[in-house]
Parts: sequence; structure tokens; C-alpha cells
Amino acid sequence: MKTGRLFEFNAPVRIVDVPDPKIDGPMDVIVKIGGAGVCGTDNNIQRGLASPSPKLPYTLGHENAGWIEEVGAVAASVGMNRGDPVILHPLISCGLCRACRAGNDMHCVSSLFPGLNTDGGYAQFLKTSVRSVIRLAAGTDPVPLAPYADAGITSYHAVKRVASQLYPGSTAVVIGIGGLGHFAIQLLKVLTPATVIGIARSNAKVQFAKDLGADAAFPAGTDGGVKEVSDFTNGLGADVVLDFVADQGTPDNGVRMLKKGGTYCVIGEGGIVSDPTIDMIVRELNIIGSLVGKYNELSELMELNRMGKIKITSKVYPMSEVVQVMKDLKEGRVLGRSVLDPWR
Amino acid sequence: MKTGRLFEFNAPVRIVDVPDPKIDGPMDVIVKIGGAGVCGTDNNIQRGLASPSPKLPYTLGHENAGWIEEVGAVAASVGMNRGDPVILHPLISCGLCRACRAGNDMHCVSSLFPGLNTDGGYAQFLKTSVRSVIRLAAGTDPVPLAPYADAGITSYHAVKRVASQLYPGSTAVVIGIGGLGHFAIQLLKVLTPATVIGIARSNAKVQFAKDLGADAAFPAGTDGGVKEVSDFTNGLGADVVLDFVADQGTPDNGVRMLKKGGTYCVIGEGGIVSDPTIDMIVRELNIIGSLVGKYNELSELMELNRMGKIKITSKVYPMSEVVQVMKDLKEGRVLGRSVLDPWR
Amino acid sequence: MKTGRLFEFNAPVRIVDVPDPKIDGPMDVIVKIGGAGVCGTDNNIQRGLASPSPKLPYTLGHENAGWIEEVGAVAASVGMNRGDPVILHPLISCGLCRACRAGNDMHCVSSLFPGLNTDGGYAQFLKTSVRSVIRLAAGTDPVPLAPYADAGITSYHAVKRVASQLYPGSTAVVIGIGGLGHFAIQLLKVLTPATVIGIARSNAKVQFAKDLGADAAFPAGTDGGVKEVSDFTNGLGADVVLDFVADQGTPDNGVRMLKKGGTYCVIGEGGIVSDPTIDMIVRELNIIGSLVGKYNELSELMELNRMGKIKITSKVYPMSEVVQVMKDLKEGRVLGRSVLDPWR
Amino acid sequence: MKTGRLFEFNAPVRIVDVPDPKIDGPMDVIVKIGGAGVCGTDNNIQRGLASPSPKLPYTLGHENAGWIEEVGAVAASVGMNRGDPVILHPLISCGLCRACRAGNDMHCVSSLFPGLNTDGGYAQFLKTSVRSVIRLAAGTDPVPLAPYADAGITSYHAVKRVASQLYPGSTAVVIGIGGLGHFAIQLLKVLTPATVIGIARSNAKVQFAKDLGADAAFPAGTDGGVKEVSDFTNGLGADVVLDFVADQGTPDNGVRMLKKGGTYCVIGEGGIVSDPTIDMIVRELNIIGSLVGKYNELSELMELNRMGKIKITSKVYPMSEVVQVMKDLKEGRVLGRSVLDPWR
Repeated sequence: MKTGRLFEFNAPVRIVDVPDPKIDGPMDVIVKIGGAGVCGTDNNIQRGLASPSPKLPYTLGHENAGWIEEVGAVAASVGMNRGDPVILHPLISCGLCRACRAGNDMHCVSSLFPGLNTDGGYAQFLKTSVRSVIRLAAGTDPVPLAPYADAGITSYHAVKRVASQLYPGSTAVVIGIGGLGHFAIQLLKVLTPATVIGIARSNAKVQFAKDLGADAAFPAGTDGGVKEVSDFTNGLGADVVLDFVADQGTPDNGVRMLKKGGTYCVIGEGGIVSDPTIDMIVRELNIIGSLVGKYNELSELMELNRMGKIKITSKVYPMSEVVQVMKDLKEGRVLGRSVLDPWR
Repeated sequence: MKTGRLFEFNAPVRIVDVPDPKIDGPMDVIVKIGGAGVCGTDNNIQRGLASPSPKLPYTLGHENAGWIEEVGAVAASVGMNRGDPVILHPLISCGLCRACRAGNDMHCVSSLFPGLNTDGGYAQFLKTSVRSVIRLAAGTDPVPLAPYADAGITSYHAVKRVASQLYPGSTAVVIGIGGLGHFAIQLLKVLTPATVIGIARSNAKVQFAKDLGADAAFPAGTDGGVKEVSDFTNGLGADVVLDFVADQGTPDNGVRMLKKGGTYCVIGEGGIVSDPTIDMIVRELNIIGSLVGKYNELSELMELNRMGKIKITSKVYPMSEVVQVMKDLKEGRVLGRSVLDPWR
Repeated sequence: MKTGRLFEFNAPVRIVDVPDPKIDGPMDVIVKIGGAGVCGTDNNIQRGLASPSPKLPYTLGHENAGWIEEVGAVAASVGMNRGDPVILHPLISCGLCRACRAGNDMHCVSSLFPGLNTDGGYAQFLKTSVRSVIRLAAGTDPVPLAPYADAGITSYHAVKRVASQLYPGSTAVVIGIGGLGHFAIQLLKVLTPATVIGIARSNAKVQFAKDLGADAAFPAGTDGGVKEVSDFTNGLGADVVLDFVADQGTPDNGVRMLKKGGTYCVIGEGGIVSDPTIDMIVRELNIIGSLVGKYNELSELMELNRMGKIKITSKVYPMSEVVQVMKDLKEGRVLGRSVLDPWR
Repeated sequence: MKTGRLFEFNAPVRIVDVPDPKIDGPMDVIVKIGGAGVCGTDNNIQRGLASPSPKLPYTLGHENAGWIEEVGAVAASVGMNRGDPVILHPLISCGLCRACRAGNDMHCVSSLFPGLNTDGGYAQFLKTSVRSVIRLAAGTDPVPLAPYADAGITSYHAVKRVASQLYPGSTAVVIGIGGLGHFAIQLLKVLTPATVIGIARSNAKVQFAKDLGADAAFPAGTDGGVKEVSDFTNGLGADVVLDFVADQGTPDNGVRMLKKGGTYCVIGEGGIVSDPTIDMIVRELNIIGSLVGKYNELSELMELNRMGKIKITSKVYPMSEVVQVMKDLKEGRVLGRSVLDPWR
């Protein structure tokens, strides 16, 4: 089959043929990939910045959707069939550890993460586990939906973690209106009664935030939007800040935006979050990290998509254009998310 | 009346006479102080480190207990009587703002804090509000209980915030076995099924932690106990770390002690907490600040004291010895808490 | 002033003059009533069905909005001014008991309830407490908003209690699309991602439910909608049922509608709820009663109204028509809520 | 192998030989039973009262502990070995449905329940799933611990559901001090700061409740303990009532014991719970059913046992005495729980 593989760091992904994956165990499922989302993490991996580093060569792609191709015994027993449109929870989790049994798939003690530490979805076929498969309504085109599998679920998980703090009259700020942030704006509006503010670097993304339903959106400017948030909230600050950038000063700015008892939730990566302990206690702040989400969360998110409450902005490219698509993302030219079709 | 007043920063507290406080409004209550706890914050204020700085001269003392002396109309209407033994919630809160109405007295938008920003309890009488008064069982000697009013409630509030994360088999670490930490060890054992580890600088306090019920206790040593916690938890780390020191590297060490999904709760002050965002998200950590607690929390804590489930370690001194008592605290010679009796 | 007073049970309310209320204590506030909602409870009281029975004669009206007329010392100190448009939390709560301090105003141990057990708002002026006053945005016309004060807050409180159970793909049923239910339909849609089903007796109210945003609505029919809910949910049942009728078999039907782990929340009154214990445990059901809500909840609800997320359906009548308005309600001819204007 | 099998309703269980179970699928685990607890449900099944009725003949026993005998591929892959002492979660759950993925094993949509609807543990060997196996510390004697597997977990699940309502000064009532209730008394004392009251029919069990740590215990008497609970709580009532009897009037009495906002949790079965809706709303009561618990809950409970915080009262009998043991239970002569050893 055709795959987009990384052979060395800081070199472009190459399109090469490898053998098709095979069913080995009763939990296995082979998925024919329809679309694989291209994520900023893919660029980080390609630049050798991921920790721990994957063993090369391997196939990128951790945002995957497509159709069931072949099933092992367990998937067969629960009625999964060839041709069913599916989206994949990004982890292959064990289902037996304490974390899995509490639904916290992202903390599984013996998981694999296709596209990060084993072969991923820049490929015509992907081997995953029955535990990772979410079937979509019959007739759904899974291709443009692939980014829900990571950008979507990660954003949903973060919004769910902070939703109980948001009441009518409260304010939530989204820093970074990229692949993840474009879901967060919509999810905050659908799941909470908060007033939502978007912060972005470019004017195009400030406008994008408004188009997605933000009550207000501001350019990051020189102070990352701190003054705008303060003015908008009459000096009180925001109840919640979701930081999808987490670099170049956004953690400092995000924490400064908070009101007493507020929560800064970091989903992006790169920078350092820090705060004097006296400020942490006097304002009784919460600084929380948020990882990719739960299987049930991705199911719920796909239901929101089906109901039309959330819409994805994605554009599908032939996998042959992977190098250019990754470059466009790195240089900030993507609105929403790009998806690779490995069959083109 | 006799008071212990601060006239200039970095100079000793002086015992001076001032006029007795008077009932001005319907919510007022005058309390005859039996005991006023001496807190590390008092030393910080005396050294000019508090922010914002109080206007001098004023009377220190924010951990107060005693007997009702005189009541305004509202206190009278709910049956408060002269001579009732009482302990005082440290804030005078408004009762009308959103925070007060949700029980979050510590976030009241227009509160006073006797001993911090208005005259406190190093005095024979204190004026407070009916909203701050908790009556103790008839016959209770309030004098040695004064430290519950701040050290106790602050510790209780922190333990309540993290308790839902602690299950049988989980681990909680208490850094700093001083006035607050000595309550935290006991409260974790009473309110949760967690295994509790104490970390302290001196051998006397390591032993104190064990005497209070810690399942294990270690000297801070060179790495603040990180290795001991890792070994004790088979490399998994702690579910919760409560840091009552928050200085000299304890925030870094506390965050390093955590397991995936764990919570570092800071109650002390002085240092800076910081962590790379990549670590925040990969381990999905929570870093939370915890302030003094709610009125209902202090009521609950006094009930734990009455039931004998929590015991205070405090020693009462004549207020005339205030300078020496504050010095002993600064130099680490106090086990539990010292209390000043303004009538001696 | 003119009032609508009840002099004997089962006799019509009479419009009579009584002396204006006066400020007696520092917490008092006199409100010039703009509108007083007419509630089914008023008809129950008039028929002598309330328990405990109010002492007659007295003034009905527990859903009140208008303008501040005169303030006591405490209200003045927090900037309340004559002419401010306001809506009133229905209870006069003490602010000092454990329940009040936790925000549970509805469980206050020494409250008054104007319109139920003391003079209410079928009157040109009402005496309440500063603790009950919610100021509306300058320029707001409070008259048509009065029903938020009881129908609205009660519905909001119930929805908030069950909201954490509702996720995308879950189902909530509202039984009874009257004054309370017409808010519940909207609130479920705004605050949760659940699919919402309305059940009503009349075709007009089935249509009303749909107009308010219900995803489906059914006539109660012979089995109260049990079959329709079962069919709609593919036999799984509803996650949540809110019963605003609670009479004539609706409790039995409501419990039958539930899926495993579901919650039946009763807000109406009249009937009896019962279930075999074996069913309670095998389906692990929750049956909960819900009372009027919290002050902060009414504030949040008024913010939803201000934001335009919730709309009230109410019609204002001169208080002189009180007898006919109460009759129309009893006979099911009111869509949304009727409001009396005591100045007409 | 030797089994205790039911051949017809209302006839005694017979000890008969059947073929040993075999590993069929990758998730299977064969356990050598060391002890099988005898539960009131077994008597109900034997009397034909279970719904749905099991297909006869089959082997009773749903509280099982022993040693791993043989493992399928998945159990082998996670290091389960022959001879490991184990206790078994009572359900064989699928691990793939929404409920399982949220940790709610008891709501699994395609589970089996050995001893209820498939062959159970009154047998020398039992076939279960790797998902149901909890390994005990090396060297643990599993035999007397078997009742944790159902009586224990069910009690733990109920206590966990109500624990967040219990604060210092609150009161919890346990009705029925049998196999389940004897755990509940201890668990309430270990996991919550509530004052705990036991209610039992016999004087022996009233004393047993006290021996287990209840702060007070009363005979059921004529009103099921309602007056005693009222007197003990100064007329306020209990915050929580756990009813392990749920028959012969205990539901009515349990609901009557509650204070405003209180929760009646039913775990027993037989009677009907009912309450006028007006009482449900005015006292804002919660009536909840509680089923057997989660896998993680049983793990936590076994950790409490290992730590010595909870102790089991059980007595082991040869399986040959099964008829007498079941009779003793029915006639109220068992303190704690009886366990059958199928190898004797």
C-alpha cells in the first residue's frame, strides 16, 4: 500500500509502498483510510522535536477516518462490518488498566498511538483495535471528518473539563484559532452559556473566530490580548482561558487574563507556564493541562457533528501533496484543518 | 484595651493601649479575644513583605477565638449572647455578592480581613461581623483553639479541594509540617482513604508528621523528598501534593512528585511555580492555588475538633511575649501553633 | 395602596386598599411592583389546598418584579437606588444559616415567602429584603419579566440539577408545557446538548413546545407519552424526565420513560411517585424532588434573558382582572404566563 | 467437578458433578474457586422470585474468590498466572459499550452475571473473563474474602454515591446490618466524617452495628427507628439513609427519616418506595437506587481490606452444607456472611 513515511528528521515525508497490515489478534481491525488530518504535531515530529522520539522510518498520521476493511473476532462479534464508515480514537488502549476502566483512555498504562509511536494513517490502510473504532451513521463520508479524531476530541476534552465553571455571565477565552481552536469556539457556544472571546495572530483568524460564533475576537497584538480581555470584562478577567498556542508568551498572558478562581487550561505546547505562588493563592487560580480525550467523548462529538451543532472546516488534498500541506500548516496558511486522501 | 500593634515595618510589635471597639451597625459583634494565633504571615507583614501593605499603625492577629462581648441587632435576633464561646471566620464578608452567595466567602468582593487590612486580634477586644461568628459548644475553652480560625480552615479548604481525587491506594504528600501542615496530615487521614506522606526539614517535624498519623514521613533532604516519594510509590508518583512551604524549590519538587493526572496544590507562598507546557499536557497535571476557606468549612472543622477526630497542637503565651513568640516561629522552633492571650 | 387579597378560601381574590409597607430594619427594601405573575400555586392556595395554610386575609403574589422604591441602610450601602428596575428572589432568606451560606436559599431555616406565608406582590408595593433583590440592566422593563421570579427560577434550578447527566445523544423529556415547562424546553436546549421532547395535554401546547425549540413533542394521550418516548429512543428510554405536572399518573409514566441510570425529577405536585425497589435498583434510577432555586440561579437566568438566549411568553393584565386571569389559568387557557399590573 | 446446582424452584440445591469449564476465547479465565459467598439473592432465586428467572438447571454463586487456574491469550499477555489469588467482579462485562467505557460495568449492555444468569461459583471451577479478575496480594487467602465480591462492592458503591453529601456534623443511617450493611457501617466511618446510626431487627445485630463502629444503633421497633433517628438528630433528620432491607415498610420509614435535601438510597429489594410529590419537592428529597458496583470500586475495596481499614466477618463452611447455610441465612442466624468452600 501507499504510505507517507518519515525516514529521517528534518527531511520531507516520502510517499513509499509498504506491505498492507494484517489481522494478528482478536481485537485487531484494519481500516481503509479515507482521510488523515495533518496536525502541528506532525511538523514537530518531522523536525525531531517530539519526546520521546519515534523510531524511524515510520508512517505519520494520528487523525484518521475511513471504512472498516477487515475485522478480528471481537469486532466481528459486536457487528462491525466491512465498509462501515468509521472514525478512530487516536490511541490503542488496553481496556484493562485502572485508567481505561474509568474511561480515561488517554492515561492507559500500555497504549500505542498510531502516527506518534507506531505506524499511522498517512497510509491506505491502518491497523488499530476494536476499542478505537467509532462507527458513523450509514452513508456518512468520513474523509473530511478525520480531524475530529484528534483536533476535535482534544478540544472537546478541554471544553468538558472547564464547562462546569461556565455560567451565564461568565467569560471564556480561546487563544489560537487553528485546527483545535476552531472547534473550541463552537463547542463553548454549544455546551456552555459563557460569552466567548477568540484571540488570534492574523486578521483572517480573528474574523474566522467571529464567523464560528465568538461573541468577540481580538488580534493578539503586543500583549496577547490581555488588555482587550480586561476591557471586555470590565477589569474582572475571564473565568476560563483555553490556550491552544502555549508558546511565545501566551501562558503568561493567559494566566494574567484570569479572574479570581479562574482556570487557565493549556492544550498547546512549547512554552513554560509559571506564576508566583502568592498570585496562585491570592487569586486562587487553577492551571491545568489537558490531553487528548476519551473514547466516549469522541462518540459524543461525532453526535454533535451529526446533529449539525458543530461544523468542521477542512479541506482534502491528495496524499501526494503532503509536503506542501505540512508546509502550509507550519506557515499559518490553513483555515481549520487539512486532510490527506491516501487514495489520490 | 491592650493591643499588640505594628508601628513600622521591621520593628517589633509593641503592646499599647487603644480605645475599645464599639458597635456601629446592625451586623457588628464585639468579641472578647481569648486567644490569637501567631502565623507566618504576621512575620511577613512585620517585615514589610505583604502585598498590599497594611496602613500603619494597626493591630496584628487574624486567628481569633474568644467570647461574645456585645452584639448588634442582627446577632441578637439569631440568639447570640454575651459569654458564648466563639471562633471567628477570618474575613468580614458582605454576604451579598455572587461569591458570598455561593459560600465562597474568601472571594467576597468587598471584604475586610482583621489582622491583615484592619485591626486584628492581638487585642483584648475585636470588632467583627455576625457573619464571621461560629459559636462553640457551651463550656468550650476557645483559647487554645484559635489557630483553627486560619491555619485550620486553610488546611481544611485545601484538603476538601483535592479529596475527590483520593481513593484507596492513592497517595497524598504534605510538604511542610508547621501550623497548617499539622492539620493537613490529620485531615487527609480522617477525610480520605489515601496513604499520607509528610515531608519536613527538621527531624523533629518528620517525627511530628508520624505522630500525627502520616503513613510515612521523610526529611526534605537535597531534592525535597522527590526520590523518597518516587520510591514509596514504586515510581508512579503521588496523586496529590499539598505544599505549605512553596519556597526554596518546593514547587518544582512538588510538581515532579506527581503521577499522571495528579494535582499540586499550593497553599504556602514565596516561590514561583513553573512547568513546561509539554509536561503539563503529557502528564495532564493540575496546579491549583488554595486560599483560606469558607465559613461552613470552619464550622465543619470545629465539629471534627468537637468529635475528637482532629486535635490541635498549640501552646498559649501571654501577649506580652509576642516578640519572642514571633521570633520562635520565624526560626522554626514552634511545633503546631503558638497562641497569644491578650489578658495575660 | 391597592392589593389583591384573599379573605377566605374558595372565595375570589378581592381588590382592596391597605396601608403601604414601611422600612423597619436595615435589610428592608420596598419595591414598587410592576408585574406579579399568576401561578398555579395561587389557585391551590385560593382553594385551601396549600400546606401549611396561610393566615387570612393576606396578599397573594410570589412572582414579582418592579422598581426599587425605598431602601434600608444595607441596600443603600451597596448602591441600590430608587427607580432601579429589579426582579425579586421569591424568598426572604436569613443569610446566616448553613443552607444560605452554601447558596441554598431555598433551604433557609428561617425564611419568609411573600405571597405564600406573608404579604405578596398582588400589590402596588412589596416589602422584601436586600438579599432578595436582583437589579436588571438600566432601562429594562421589568413588568413582563415577573414570571422569571418563580416559574423561571424553578425551571432553571431543575435543569441545572440534571444537566450534568445530559450529553450529545442523550434525551430529556419535559412533561407539561405550562409556565414552568415553557422555560424548561428552552433551558435544556441552551444549557445542554440533549435531544428534548415535550409532552402536553392539548394540541396547542404540543405545538408550543415545538415552537420553543423541542426536537419533538407529543400529546399525552392515554399513556402519558410513554410509548412515544420509547419509540423515539429506540426502546432505550430517556436519560432525564422533568415532570411539571406530577399528577394524574404522570409520575408513574415519567419513571417508566427512564433508561438505566436515568433521573426522574419532579417539580409539579399533587400525585404520588412510587416504584418497586427491585426496579429502582435493577435500573439504578434516581427520583429527585426539585424546589425553587437559588439567588445566583435567578441572576444567571436574567442574564440568559438579557442575552436573548431565553424568551418569556407572558401577557400583562390589569390587576382588576385577577379573578378572570386565575380562572383562565385553572382551565388551561394560558400560553406561558399571565402577569398582573397592580397600577392598572 | 463438584457443583451446587439448582434443578427446580423451591427445592434444595443439590451437589452434583458436571464437566469442568474450558477456555473458549481469548478473554476467558478459569478460576479455581476457594470460596463462594451465600447471599439473600440465592434464596430468592431458589424460591423462584428472581426476575428474569434463570434457566434451570444451573449453578448458583455470584460472590467468588479463589486462584487462577487457566488463562486465555489476553490474560496471559497482562501477566496473570496460575495460582494467583483473585477475587472476581461479579459481572462479565463487554468492555466496549458506552457504560463499560465510562467504568459503569453494572450497566453493560451485553453482560453475563455468573450465579444469576449463567453458571456461578458454587463450584470447584468457574469460567469468567479477564475483565472480571482482580489479583490479590501474593499470599492472600482468598477464601474468607469472597463476600467482598458482591456484598462488599454493592455496599461500597452505595456509600460512594452518597459520600459527597456527608460532612462533619451530618448523619447517615444504615437500615439492615446483614452481609451488606456490616460493610456499610465500616465504610461510612472510613470514607466519611458522618455520624453513623445502625438500625436492625435483632438485638444481636444492634450490638453488631456498634461493634463495627456505629456511633449509635437502635432496634427497628414498631416504627423502624424513625423516632430514634429524629430524637438523635434533634428533629432535623438524617442526611442519608442506606436501606439494605427495602421491605416490610422500611422504604416509608427511610424516607421519613430524611432531612431537607436528604437522600434515601435503596439497595435491598422487595417493597415499594413511594412519596407524595408535594413532600418530594418541599423537602427536595432524593430517592436513588443503587446496584452492584464498578470493577475499580472492587479494587479499591480490596485495598481497604489489605490496609486493614475494613474487616470482613465471614465464616467458611463445606459446600456440602449448602442447604443448611442457605436456611440459616433466610432465618436471620448469620452474622456477616457465610462462605462455601467447594473443595470440602
